[in-house]
Amino acid sequence: MVQQLTLLGTGLMGSALTNRYLNRGVEVTVWNRSPERSAPLVKSGARAALNLPSALEANALVLVVLLDYSVFRSVMAGHEPLISGRDFINFMTGSAKDATELAAYISSHGGRYLEAAIEAYPDDIGQESTLIHYSGPEDIWLRHAALLRLPGAASRWIGELISAANVLDAAMAGAFYNTGIGAFLEAVDFARKAGVGIEPLENCLVYFLDLLKTELTAVINHHKSDDYRTDQATLSIYVAAVKSWRQTMLDSGQRASLFTANLHCMEMAVAEGRGHLGIAATYASHLQVPGQKQ
Amino acid sequence: MVQQLTLLGTGLMGSALTNRYLNRGVEVTVWNRSPERSAPLVKSGARAALNLPSALEANALVLVVLLDYSVFRSVMAGHEPLISGRDFINFMTGSAKDATELAAYISSHGGRYLEAAIEAYPDDIGQESTLIHYSGPEDIWLRHAALLRLPGAASRWIGELISAANVLDAAMAGAFYNTGIGAFLEAVDFARKAGVGIEPLENCLVYFLDLLKTELTAVINHHKSDDYRTDQATLSIYVAAVKSWRQTMLDSGQRASLFTANLHCMEMAVAEGRGHLGIAATYASHLQVPGQKQ
Repeated sequence: MVQQLTLLGTGLMGSALTNRYLNRGVEVTVWNRSPERSAPLVKSGARAALNLPSALEANALVLVVLLDYSVFRSVMAGHEPLISGRDFINFMTGSAKDATELAAYISSHGGRYLEAAIEAYPDDIGQESTLIHYSGPEDIWLRHAALLRLPGAASRWIGELISAANVLDAAMAGAFYNTGIGAFLEAVDFARKAGVGIEPLENCLVYFLDLLKTELTAVINHHKSDDYRTDQATLSIYVAAVKSWRQTMLDSGQRASLFTANLHCMEMAVAEGRGHLGIAATYASHLQVPGQKQ
Repeated sequence: MVQQLTLLGTGLMGSALTNRYLNRGVEVTVWNRSPERSAPLVKSGARAALNLPSALEANALVLVVLLDYSVFRSVMAGHEPLISGRDFINFMTGSAKDATELAAYISSHGGRYLEAAIEAYPDDIGQESTLIHYSGPEDIWLRHAALLRLPGAASRWIGELISAANVLDAAMAGAFYNTGIGAFLEAVDFARKAGVGIEPLENCLVYFLDLLKTELTAVINHHKSDDYRTDQATLSIYVAAVKSWRQTMLDSGQRASLFTANLHCMEMAVAEGRGHLGIAATYASHLQVPGQKQ
Protein backbone atom coordinates (compact mmCIF):
# COMPACT_ATOMS: atom_id res chain seq x y z
CA MET A 1 0.00 0.00 0.00
CA VAL A 2 1.33 3.38 -1.00
CA GLN A 3 1.56 5.70 1.96
CA GLN A 4 0.52 9.27 1.44
CA LEU A 5 0.00 12.44 3.41
CA THR A 6 -0.63 16.15 3.09
CA LEU A 7 1.81 18.69 4.55
CA LEU A 8 0.87 22.34 5.15
CA GLY A 9 3.73 24.84 5.36
CA THR A 10 6.93 24.40 3.37
CA GLY A 11 9.36 26.56 5.34
CA LEU A 12 12.69 25.15 6.54
CA MET A 13 11.20 22.48 8.79
CA GLY A 14 8.27 21.63 6.50
CA SER A 15 10.67 21.21 3.58
CA ALA A 16 12.99 18.99 5.66
CA LEU A 17 10.06 16.76 6.64
CA THR A 18 8.77 16.61 3.04
CA ASN A 19 12.17 15.63 1.66
CA ARG A 20 12.50 12.90 4.25
CA TYR A 21 9.11 11.44 3.32
CA LEU A 22 9.80 11.66 -0.41
CA ASN A 23 13.12 9.87 0.09
CA ARG A 24 11.30 7.05 1.83
CA GLY A 25 8.71 6.62 -0.91
CA VAL A 26 5.83 8.45 0.75
CA GLU A 27 3.56 10.45 -1.58
CA VAL A 28 3.40 14.01 -0.27
CA THR A 29 0.91 16.70 -1.24
CA VAL A 30 2.16 20.12 -0.09
CA TRP A 31 0.52 23.50 0.30
CA ASN A 32 2.06 26.82 1.30
CA ARG A 33 0.67 30.34 1.52
CA SER A 34 3.47 31.47 -0.83
CA PRO A 35 3.42 28.70 -3.48
CA GLU A 36 6.94 29.49 -4.76
CA ARG A 37 8.41 28.09 -1.51
CA SER A 38 7.16 24.66 -2.60
CA ALA A 39 8.85 24.67 -6.03
CA PRO A 40 12.04 22.82 -4.95
CA LEU A 41 9.90 20.13 -3.30
CA VAL A 42 7.86 19.65 -6.49
CA LYS A 43 11.14 19.10 -8.35
CA SER A 44 11.91 16.38 -5.80
CA GLY A 45 8.60 14.65 -6.42
CA ALA A 46 6.03 16.37 -4.19
CA ARG A 47 2.63 17.27 -5.56
CA ALA A 48 1.68 20.93 -4.96
CA ALA A 49 -2.01 21.49 -4.23
CA LEU A 50 -3.49 24.52 -5.95
CA ASN A 51 -5.30 25.61 -2.82
CA LEU A 52 -5.89 24.57 0.78
CA PRO A 53 -9.16 22.68 0.19
CA SER A 54 -7.61 20.51 -2.49
CA ALA A 55 -4.59 19.89 -0.20
CA LEU A 56 -6.92 18.69 2.56
CA GLU A 57 -9.08 16.63 0.19
CA ALA A 58 -6.02 14.79 -1.09
CA ASN A 59 -5.37 12.82 2.11
CA ALA A 60 -6.80 11.74 5.46
CA LEU A 61 -3.49 12.47 7.24
CA VAL A 62 -2.45 16.14 7.45
CA LEU A 63 0.87 17.38 8.91
CA VAL A 64 0.75 21.03 9.96
CA VAL A 65 4.09 22.89 9.86
CA LEU A 66 2.85 26.46 9.47
CA LEU A 67 4.38 29.39 11.38
CA ASP A 68 2.05 29.20 14.38
CA TYR A 69 -1.40 28.27 15.63
CA SER A 70 -3.02 31.56 14.64
CA VAL A 71 -1.84 31.17 11.04
CA PHE A 72 -3.38 27.70 10.97
CA ARG A 73 -6.67 28.99 12.33
CA SER A 74 -6.79 31.87 9.85
CA VAL A 75 -6.06 29.73 6.77
CA MET A 76 -8.62 27.12 7.92
CA ALA A 77 -11.39 29.69 8.37
CA GLY A 78 -14.29 28.68 6.11
CA HIS A 79 -12.85 25.23 5.35
CA GLU A 80 -13.92 23.59 8.61
CA PRO A 81 -16.15 21.00 6.89
CA LEU A 82 -12.93 19.45 5.54
CA ILE A 83 -11.67 18.76 9.08
CA SER A 84 -14.14 15.94 9.54
CA GLY A 85 -12.69 12.43 9.24
CA ARG A 86 -9.10 13.67 8.99
CA ASP A 87 -6.15 13.22 11.40
CA PHE A 88 -4.09 16.37 11.98
CA ILE A 89 -0.55 16.19 13.35
CA ASN A 90 0.59 19.58 14.56
CA PHE A 91 4.33 20.32 14.41
CA MET A 92 3.99 24.03 15.25
CA THR A 93 5.55 25.25 18.50
CA GLY A 94 3.00 26.49 21.00
CA SER A 95 1.87 26.60 24.59
CA ALA A 96 -0.15 24.11 26.58
CA LYS A 97 -3.17 26.40 26.11
CA ASP A 98 -2.62 26.51 22.33
CA ALA A 99 -2.74 22.73 22.19
CA THR A 100 -5.83 22.43 24.35
CA GLU A 101 -7.72 25.04 22.30
CA LEU A 102 -6.71 23.52 18.96
CA ALA A 103 -7.82 20.08 20.17
CA ALA A 104 -11.26 21.49 20.98
CA TYR A 105 -11.47 23.19 17.58
CA ILE A 106 -10.49 20.10 15.57
CA SER A 107 -12.69 17.85 17.66
CA SER A 108 -15.73 20.13 17.33
CA HIS A 109 -15.45 19.75 13.56
CA GLY A 110 -15.13 15.97 13.61
CA GLY A 111 -11.36 15.66 13.20
CA ARG A 112 -8.69 14.01 15.32
CA TYR A 113 -5.47 15.63 16.45
CA LEU A 114 -2.00 14.79 17.78
CA GLU A 115 0.43 17.38 19.08
CA ALA A 116 4.11 17.11 18.08
CA ALA A 117 7.25 18.89 19.30
CA ILE A 118 10.41 18.51 17.22
CA GLU A 119 13.47 18.51 19.51
CA ALA A 120 15.95 19.05 16.68
CA TYR A 121 17.02 21.40 13.91
CA PRO A 122 15.83 20.97 10.29
CA ASP A 123 19.26 19.52 9.35
CA ASP A 124 18.72 16.67 11.85
CA ILE A 125 15.46 15.44 10.30
CA GLY A 126 15.70 11.80 9.25
CA GLN A 127 18.52 10.82 11.59
CA GLU A 128 18.48 7.82 13.92
CA SER A 129 19.03 9.95 17.01
CA THR A 130 16.45 12.65 16.22
CA LEU A 131 13.62 13.00 18.73
CA ILE A 132 10.06 14.20 18.19
CA HIS A 133 7.62 14.05 21.10
CA TYR A 134 3.99 13.26 20.27
CA SER A 135 1.03 13.57 22.62
CA GLY A 136 -2.71 13.04 22.33
CA PRO A 137 -5.04 10.11 21.66
CA GLU A 138 -3.07 6.84 21.61
CA ASP A 139 -5.15 5.35 18.77
CA ILE A 140 -4.10 8.17 16.45
CA TRP A 141 -0.46 7.63 17.43
CA LEU A 142 -0.69 3.87 16.83
CA ARG A 143 -2.40 4.40 13.46
CA HIS A 144 0.47 6.56 12.17
CA ALA A 145 3.46 5.64 14.36
CA ALA A 146 5.56 4.19 11.52
CA LEU A 147 5.14 7.34 9.43
CA LEU A 148 5.60 9.67 12.41
CA ARG A 149 8.89 8.01 13.36
CA LEU A 150 10.37 8.46 9.87
CA PRO A 151 11.61 12.04 10.56
CA GLY A 152 13.37 10.87 13.76
CA ALA A 153 13.86 7.27 14.83
CA ALA A 154 14.10 8.23 18.54
CA SER A 155 10.60 9.73 18.51
CA ARG A 156 8.12 8.85 21.25
CA TRP A 157 4.48 9.17 22.18
CA ILE A 158 4.40 10.54 25.74
CA GLY A 159 0.75 10.32 26.73
CA GLU A 160 -2.90 11.13 26.16
CA LEU A 161 -2.66 14.68 27.58
CA ILE A 162 -2.82 16.76 24.38
CA SER A 163 -0.56 19.50 25.79
CA ALA A 164 2.18 17.11 26.99
CA ALA A 165 4.47 17.54 23.96
CA ASN A 166 4.33 21.35 24.26
CA VAL A 167 4.90 21.23 28.04
CA LEU A 168 7.87 18.87 27.69
CA ASP A 169 9.27 21.07 24.91
CA ALA A 170 9.04 24.21 27.07
CA ALA A 171 10.52 22.31 30.02
CA MET A 172 13.43 20.54 28.35
CA ALA A 173 14.27 22.49 25.16
CA GLY A 174 13.37 25.71 26.96
CA ALA A 175 13.83 25.78 30.71
CA PHE A 176 16.60 23.16 30.87
CA TYR A 177 18.55 23.26 27.61
CA ASN A 178 18.29 26.96 26.83
CA THR A 179 19.03 28.04 30.40
CA GLY A 180 21.90 25.53 30.45
CA ILE A 181 23.44 27.29 27.46
CA GLY A 182 22.90 30.64 29.19
CA ALA A 183 24.55 29.35 32.38
CA PHE A 184 27.62 28.27 30.42
CA LEU A 185 27.76 31.62 28.61
CA GLU A 186 27.72 33.39 32.00
CA ALA A 187 30.56 31.11 33.16
CA VAL A 188 32.58 31.76 30.01
CA ASP A 189 32.08 35.50 30.22
CA PHE A 190 33.20 35.58 33.86
CA ALA A 191 36.26 33.37 33.29
CA ARG A 192 37.39 35.47 30.35
CA LYS A 193 36.87 38.75 32.22
CA ALA A 194 38.81 37.37 35.20
CA GLY A 195 41.78 36.50 32.99
CA VAL A 196 41.45 32.70 32.95
CA GLY A 197 40.63 32.44 29.26
CA ILE A 198 38.65 29.83 27.38
CA GLU A 199 40.96 26.79 27.32
CA PRO A 200 40.69 25.76 30.99
CA LEU A 201 36.90 25.76 30.54
CA GLU A 202 37.17 23.72 27.38
CA ASN A 203 39.35 21.17 29.18
CA CYS A 204 36.85 20.56 31.98
CA LEU A 205 33.56 20.89 30.08
CA VAL A 206 33.06 17.14 29.61
CA TYR A 207 33.95 16.57 33.29
CA PHE A 208 31.21 18.93 34.45
CA LEU A 209 28.68 17.57 31.94
CA ASP A 210 29.33 14.11 33.40
CA LEU A 211 28.82 15.48 36.94
CA LEU A 212 25.60 17.09 35.73
CA LYS A 213 24.34 13.81 34.30
CA THR A 214 25.02 12.05 37.61
CA GLU A 215 23.34 14.79 39.66
CA LEU A 216 20.29 15.14 37.40
CA THR A 217 19.79 11.37 37.48
CA ALA A 218 19.81 11.64 41.28
CA VAL A 219 17.29 14.51 41.07
CA ILE A 220 14.99 12.33 38.95
CA ASN A 221 15.19 9.53 41.51
CA HIS A 222 14.29 11.94 44.32
CA HIS A 223 11.27 13.10 42.32
CA LYS A 224 10.18 9.57 41.36
CA SER A 225 10.14 8.57 45.02
CA ASP A 226 9.08 12.02 46.31
CA ASP A 227 11.81 11.57 48.93
CA TYR A 228 14.14 14.56 49.12
CA ARG A 229 16.36 13.57 52.03
CA THR A 230 20.10 13.38 51.31
CA ASP A 231 23.31 12.19 52.95
CA GLN A 232 25.25 14.48 50.58
CA ALA A 233 25.26 18.29 50.53
CA THR A 234 22.00 19.81 51.80
CA LEU A 235 20.31 22.86 50.32
CA SER A 236 21.74 24.97 53.17
CA ILE A 237 25.27 23.84 52.31
CA TYR A 238 24.68 24.58 48.62
CA VAL A 239 23.42 28.07 49.47
CA ALA A 240 26.62 28.85 51.39
CA ALA A 241 28.78 27.70 48.47
CA VAL A 242 26.68 29.55 45.90
CA LYS A 243 26.90 32.78 47.90
CA SER A 244 30.70 32.53 47.96
CA TRP A 245 30.95 31.76 44.22
CA ARG A 246 28.53 34.57 43.42
CA GLN A 247 30.61 37.04 45.46
CA THR A 248 33.66 36.02 43.43
CA MET A 249 31.72 36.86 40.27
CA LEU A 250 30.41 40.18 41.60
CA ASP A 251 33.96 41.12 42.73
CA SER A 252 34.99 40.78 39.09
CA GLY A 253 32.17 43.00 37.87
CA GLN A 254 30.05 40.08 36.63
CA ARG A 255 26.29 40.61 36.97
CA ALA A 256 25.70 36.85 37.40
CA SER A 257 22.00 37.21 36.53
CA LEU A 258 21.20 33.51 36.14
CA PHE A 259 23.31 32.53 39.12
CA THR A 260 21.53 35.16 41.23
CA ALA A 261 18.10 33.91 40.14
CA ASN A 262 19.13 30.38 41.08
CA LEU A 263 20.47 31.49 44.47
CA HIS A 264 17.19 33.27 45.13
CA CYS A 265 15.16 30.10 44.44
CA MET A 266 17.43 28.11 46.77
CA GLU A 267 17.25 30.77 49.50
CA MET A 268 13.44 30.69 49.28
CA ALA A 269 13.53 26.91 49.76
CA VAL A 270 15.70 27.32 52.87
CA ALA A 271 13.40 30.07 54.17
CA GLU A 272 10.45 27.70 53.70
CA GLY A 273 12.15 25.14 55.93
CA ARG A 274 13.72 22.77 53.39
CA GLY A 275 17.39 23.58 54.09
CA HIS A 276 17.99 20.13 55.60
CA LEU A 277 16.85 18.38 52.40
CA GLY A 278 18.74 17.82 49.15
CA ILE A 279 18.88 20.30 46.27
CA ALA A 280 16.08 18.34 44.53
CA ALA A 281 13.72 19.93 47.10
CA THR A 282 14.31 23.48 45.80
CA TYR A 283 10.73 23.62 44.53
CA ALA A 284 8.02 22.63 46.98
CA SER A 285 5.12 21.80 44.66
CA HIS A 286 5.45 18.07 45.08
CA LEU A 287 6.45 17.79 48.70
CA GLN A 288 3.76 15.88 50.49
CA VAL A 289 2.48 17.03 53.83
CA PRO A 290 3.43 14.20 56.24
CA GLY A 291 0.62 11.68 56.59
CA GLN A 292 -1.20 13.03 53.54
CA LYS A 293 -1.09 11.29 50.17
CA GLN A 294 -1.54 13.28 46.97
CA MET B 1 62.78 8.66 49.36
CA VAL B 2 59.85 8.77 51.77
CA GLN B 3 57.37 11.44 50.81
CA GLN B 4 55.86 13.47 53.58
CA LEU B 5 53.57 16.41 54.09
CA THR B 6 51.61 18.33 56.70
CA LEU B 7 47.84 18.74 56.42
CA LEU B 8 45.89 21.38 58.36
CA GLY B 9 42.18 20.73 58.91
CA THR B 10 40.77 17.22 59.28
CA GLY B 11 37.12 17.77 58.39
CA LEU B 12 35.42 15.61 55.75
CA MET B 13 37.63 16.72 52.86
CA GLY B 14 40.85 16.91 54.90
CA SER B 15 40.26 13.40 56.21
CA ALA B 16 39.57 12.07 52.71
CA LEU B 17 42.83 13.60 51.44
CA THR B 18 44.79 12.26 54.44
CA ASN B 19 43.45 8.74 53.99
CA ARG B 20 44.35 8.80 50.32
CA TYR B 21 47.94 9.85 51.09
CA LEU B 22 48.30 7.28 53.88
CA ASN B 23 47.06 4.55 51.53
CA ARG B 24 49.73 5.51 49.04
CA GLY B 25 52.56 5.43 51.60
CA VAL B 26 52.90 9.16 52.18
CA GLU B 27 53.76 10.20 55.76
CA VAL B 28 51.14 12.71 56.88
CA THR B 29 51.33 15.01 59.91
CA VAL B 30 47.88 16.39 60.69
CA TRP B 31 46.65 19.26 62.82
CA ASN B 32 43.11 20.35 63.59
CA ARG B 33 41.64 22.99 65.89
CA SER B 34 39.58 20.27 67.56
CA PRO B 35 42.17 17.47 67.99
CA GLU B 36 39.53 14.74 68.45
CA ARG B 37 38.58 15.05 64.76
CA SER B 38 42.05 13.65 63.90
CA ALA B 39 41.78 10.50 66.05
CA PRO B 40 40.50 8.17 63.26
CA LEU B 41 43.35 9.35 61.02
CA VAL B 42 45.93 8.62 63.72
CA LYS B 43 44.53 5.08 63.91
CA SER B 44 45.12 4.84 60.16
CA GLY B 45 48.74 5.89 60.53
CA ALA B 46 48.80 9.69 60.53
CA ARG B 47 50.92 11.57 63.03
CA ALA B 48 48.98 14.21 65.00
CA ALA B 49 50.96 17.35 65.78
CA LEU B 50 50.43 18.70 69.29
CA ASN B 51 50.10 22.25 68.03
CA LEU B 52 50.23 24.30 64.84
CA PRO B 53 53.92 25.28 65.08
CA SER B 54 55.02 21.68 65.42
CA ALA B 55 52.74 20.72 62.49
CA LEU B 56 54.40 23.36 60.32
CA GLU B 57 57.91 22.48 61.48
CA ALA B 58 57.38 18.83 60.56
CA ASN B 59 57.38 19.40 56.78
CA ALA B 60 58.21 21.83 54.00
CA LEU B 61 54.94 21.02 52.16
CA VAL B 62 51.73 22.11 53.86
CA LEU B 63 48.21 21.34 52.59
CA VAL B 64 45.56 23.70 53.97
CA VAL B 65 42.02 22.26 54.21
CA LEU B 66 40.59 24.49 56.95
CA LEU B 67 37.06 25.93 56.80
CA ASP B 68 38.01 29.16 55.06
CA TYR B 69 40.68 31.79 54.49
CA SER B 70 39.88 33.77 57.63
CA VAL B 71 40.27 30.68 59.82
CA PHE B 72 43.69 30.07 58.26
CA ARG B 73 44.74 33.67 58.86
CA SER B 74 43.57 33.58 62.47
CA VAL B 75 45.32 30.29 63.38
CA MET B 76 48.52 31.49 61.66
CA ALA B 77 48.61 34.78 63.58
CA GLY B 78 51.90 34.92 65.51
CA HIS B 79 53.40 31.93 63.66
CA GLU B 80 54.37 33.83 60.51
CA PRO B 81 58.10 33.13 60.91
CA LEU B 82 57.27 29.47 60.14
CA ILE B 83 55.93 30.41 56.71
CA SER B 84 59.42 31.06 55.38
CA GLY B 85 60.81 28.32 53.15
CA ARG B 86 57.56 26.34 53.07
CA ASP B 87 55.18 25.58 50.17
CA PHE B 88 51.49 25.98 51.00
CA ILE B 89 48.78 24.35 48.89
CA ASN B 90 45.38 25.86 49.65
CA PHE B 91 42.34 23.62 49.17
CA MET B 92 39.89 26.04 50.82
CA THR B 93 37.10 27.47 48.64
CA GLY B 94 37.38 31.21 48.16
CA SER B 95 37.14 34.13 45.82
CA ALA B 96 39.67 35.51 43.37
CA LYS B 97 40.36 38.28 45.89
CA ASP B 98 40.92 35.75 48.71
CA ALA B 99 43.57 34.01 46.62
CA THR B 100 45.34 37.21 45.64
CA GLU B 101 45.45 38.44 49.24
CA LEU B 102 46.66 35.11 50.62
CA ALA B 103 49.40 34.99 47.97
CA ALA B 104 50.63 38.42 49.14
CA TYR B 105 50.55 37.32 52.79
CA ILE B 106 52.46 34.06 52.22
CA SER B 107 54.93 35.74 49.91
CA SER B 108 55.60 38.62 52.34
CA HIS B 109 56.69 36.03 54.92
CA GLY B 110 58.98 34.14 52.56
CA GLY B 111 56.68 31.24 51.65
CA ARG B 112 55.37 29.95 48.33
CA TYR B 113 51.74 29.22 47.55
CA LEU B 114 49.55 27.31 45.10
CA GLU B 115 45.77 27.63 44.97
CA ALA B 116 43.66 24.47 44.57
CA ALA B 117 39.97 23.92 43.83
CA ILE B 118 38.58 20.41 44.32
CA GLU B 119 35.84 19.74 41.74
CA ALA B 120 34.52 16.65 43.54
CA TYR B 121 32.93 15.37 46.74
CA PRO B 122 35.03 13.83 49.57
CA ASP B 123 33.87 10.33 48.49
CA ASP B 124 35.47 10.87 45.07
CA ILE B 125 38.97 11.57 46.41
CA GLY B 126 41.53 9.13 45.00
CA GLN B 127 39.60 8.18 41.87
CA GLU B 128 41.01 8.22 38.34
CA SER B 129 38.38 10.66 37.09
CA THR B 130 38.58 13.13 40.00
CA LEU B 131 39.64 16.66 39.06
CA ILE B 132 41.45 19.25 41.15
CA HIS B 133 42.47 22.53 39.51
CA TYR B 134 45.74 24.10 40.68
CA SER B 135 46.96 27.60 39.87
CA GLY B 136 50.00 29.67 40.80
CA PRO B 137 53.77 29.49 40.24
CA GLU B 138 54.59 26.68 37.81
CA ASP B 139 57.78 25.69 39.65
CA ILE B 140 55.79 24.89 42.80
CA TRP B 141 53.37 22.81 40.73
CA LEU B 142 56.19 20.91 39.04
CA ARG B 143 57.93 20.29 42.39
CA HIS B 144 54.83 18.59 43.86
CA ALA B 145 52.80 17.49 40.82
CA ALA B 146 53.05 13.76 41.56
CA LEU B 147 51.79 14.24 45.13
CA LEU B 148 49.12 16.75 44.09
CA ARG B 149 47.70 14.36 41.50
CA LEU B 150 47.30 11.51 44.01
CA PRO B 151 43.87 12.73 45.25
CA GLY B 152 42.57 12.93 41.66
CA ALA B 153 44.33 11.59 38.59
CA ALA B 154 42.54 14.04 36.27
CA SER B 155 43.97 17.04 38.13
CA ARG B 156 45.53 19.92 36.20
CA TRP B 157 47.62 23.04 36.66
CA ILE B 158 45.81 25.80 34.79
CA GLY B 159 48.22 28.73 34.90
CA GLU B 160 50.38 31.20 36.82
CA LEU B 161 47.45 33.47 37.75
CA ILE B 162 47.02 32.64 41.45
CA SER B 163 43.25 33.21 41.38
CA ALA B 164 42.64 31.02 38.30
CA ALA B 165 41.55 27.90 40.25
CA ASN B 166 39.03 29.91 42.28
CA VAL B 167 37.71 31.70 39.20
CA LEU B 168 37.31 28.45 37.26
CA ASP B 169 35.61 26.87 40.29
CA ALA B 170 33.09 29.73 40.56
CA ALA B 171 32.55 29.63 36.78
CA MET B 172 32.14 25.90 36.24
CA ALA B 173 31.10 24.35 39.59
CA GLY B 174 29.11 27.50 40.35
CA ALA B 175 27.73 29.42 37.41
CA PHE B 176 27.50 26.49 35.00
CA TYR B 177 26.96 23.29 37.02
CA ASN B 178 24.87 24.70 39.85
CA THR B 179 22.69 26.81 37.56
CA GLY B 180 22.36 23.78 35.27
CA ILE B 181 20.91 21.80 38.19
CA GLY B 182 18.58 24.72 38.98
CA ALA B 183 17.44 24.90 35.36
CA PHE B 184 16.56 21.22 35.39
CA LEU B 185 14.71 21.59 38.69
CA GLU B 186 12.67 24.42 37.18
CA ALA B 187 11.89 22.18 34.18
CA VAL B 188 10.89 19.25 36.44
CA ASP B 189 8.69 21.44 38.61
CA PHE B 190 6.89 22.87 35.59
CA ALA B 191 6.39 19.49 33.89
CA ARG B 192 4.97 17.96 37.08
CA LYS B 193 2.65 20.91 37.73
CA ALA B 194 1.43 20.73 34.11
CA GLY B 195 0.55 17.06 34.51
CA VAL B 196 3.31 15.52 32.37
CA GLY B 197 5.06 13.78 35.24
CA ILE B 198 8.67 12.80 35.66
CA GLU B 199 9.10 9.83 33.31
CA PRO B 200 8.98 11.69 29.98
CA LEU B 201 11.75 13.96 31.34
CA GLU B 202 13.78 10.97 32.45
CA ASN B 203 13.46 9.42 28.99
CA CYS B 204 14.85 12.45 27.17
CA LEU B 205 17.45 13.68 29.70
CA VAL B 206 20.42 12.04 27.97
CA TYR B 207 19.17 13.33 24.61
CA PHE B 208 19.20 16.93 25.85
CA LEU B 209 22.55 16.52 27.64
CA ASP B 210 24.01 15.36 24.31
CA LEU B 211 22.48 18.39 22.56
CA LEU B 212 23.97 20.58 25.29
CA LYS B 213 27.43 19.07 24.78
CA THR B 214 27.23 19.76 21.04
CA GLU B 215 26.01 23.33 21.54
CA LEU B 216 28.54 24.21 24.29
CA THR B 217 31.36 22.86 22.15
CA ALA B 218 30.15 25.20 19.40
CA VAL B 219 30.05 28.07 21.94
CA ILE B 220 33.68 27.35 22.90
CA ASN B 221 34.71 27.45 19.24
CA HIS B 222 32.97 30.80 18.75
CA HIS B 223 34.84 32.18 21.78
CA LYS B 224 38.20 30.72 20.73
CA SER B 225 37.93 32.45 17.37
CA ASP B 226 36.01 35.47 18.70
CA ASP B 227 33.71 35.00 15.71
CA TYR B 228 30.05 34.92 16.69
CA ARG B 229 28.39 34.71 13.29
CA THR B 230 26.11 31.71 12.70
CA ASP B 231 24.21 30.00 9.91
CA GLN B 232 21.96 28.35 12.53
CA ALA B 233 19.44 30.06 14.81
CA THR B 234 20.35 33.68 15.60
CA LEU B 235 19.89 35.33 18.99
CA SER B 236 16.72 37.02 17.67
CA ILE B 237 15.26 33.65 16.72
CA TYR B 238 16.15 32.20 20.13
CA VAL B 239 14.48 35.14 21.88
CA ALA B 240 11.21 34.50 20.01
CA ALA B 241 11.27 30.81 20.98
CA VAL B 242 12.19 31.54 24.61
CA LYS B 243 9.34 34.06 24.92
CA SER B 244 6.86 31.45 23.70
CA TRP B 245 8.21 28.72 26.04
CA ARG B 246 8.23 31.14 28.96
CA GLN B 247 4.59 32.09 28.28
CA THR B 248 3.69 28.39 28.42
CA MET B 249 5.34 28.21 31.85
CA LEU B 250 3.68 31.38 33.14
CA ASP B 251 0.28 30.13 31.88
CA SER B 252 0.76 27.14 34.19
CA GLY B 253 1.58 29.34 37.19
CA GLN B 254 5.34 28.66 36.98
CA ARG B 255 7.50 31.63 38.03
CA ALA B 256 10.30 30.54 35.65
CA SER B 257 12.87 32.65 37.50
CA LEU B 258 15.99 31.25 35.83
CA PHE B 259 14.36 31.16 32.42
CA THR B 260 13.29 34.78 32.85
CA ALA B 261 16.81 35.86 33.87
CA ASN B 262 18.18 34.11 30.79
CA LEU B 263 15.60 35.72 28.50
CA HIS B 264 16.52 39.12 29.92
CA CYS B 265 20.23 38.60 29.12
CA MET B 266 19.35 37.55 25.58
CA GLU B 267 16.99 40.51 25.11
CA MET B 268 19.74 42.88 26.25
CA ALA B 269 22.05 41.35 23.64
CA VAL B 270 19.44 41.93 20.92
CA ALA B 271 18.87 45.49 22.17
CA GLU B 272 22.62 46.09 21.94
CA GLY B 273 22.55 45.10 18.26
CA ARG B 274 23.71 41.48 18.37
CA GLY B 275 20.43 39.81 17.34
CA HIS B 276 21.90 38.74 13.99
CA LEU B 277 24.73 36.80 15.70
CA GLY B 278 24.66 33.37 17.34
CA ILE B 279 23.69 32.72 20.95
CA ALA B 280 27.40 32.66 21.89
CA ALA B 281 27.31 36.47 21.51
CA THR B 282 24.86 36.94 24.42
CA TYR B 283 27.61 38.64 26.44
CA ALA B 284 29.49 41.43 24.71
CA SER B 285 32.71 41.61 26.75
CA HIS B 286 34.84 39.93 24.16
CA LEU B 287 33.35 41.25 20.96
CA GLN B 288 35.98 43.20 19.12
CA VAL B 289 35.22 46.54 17.60
CA PRO B 290 35.68 46.00 13.82
CA GLY B 291 39.21 46.81 12.68
CA GLN B 292 40.54 46.83 16.24
CA LYS B 293 42.53 43.93 17.70
CA GLN B 294 42.50 43.25 21.42
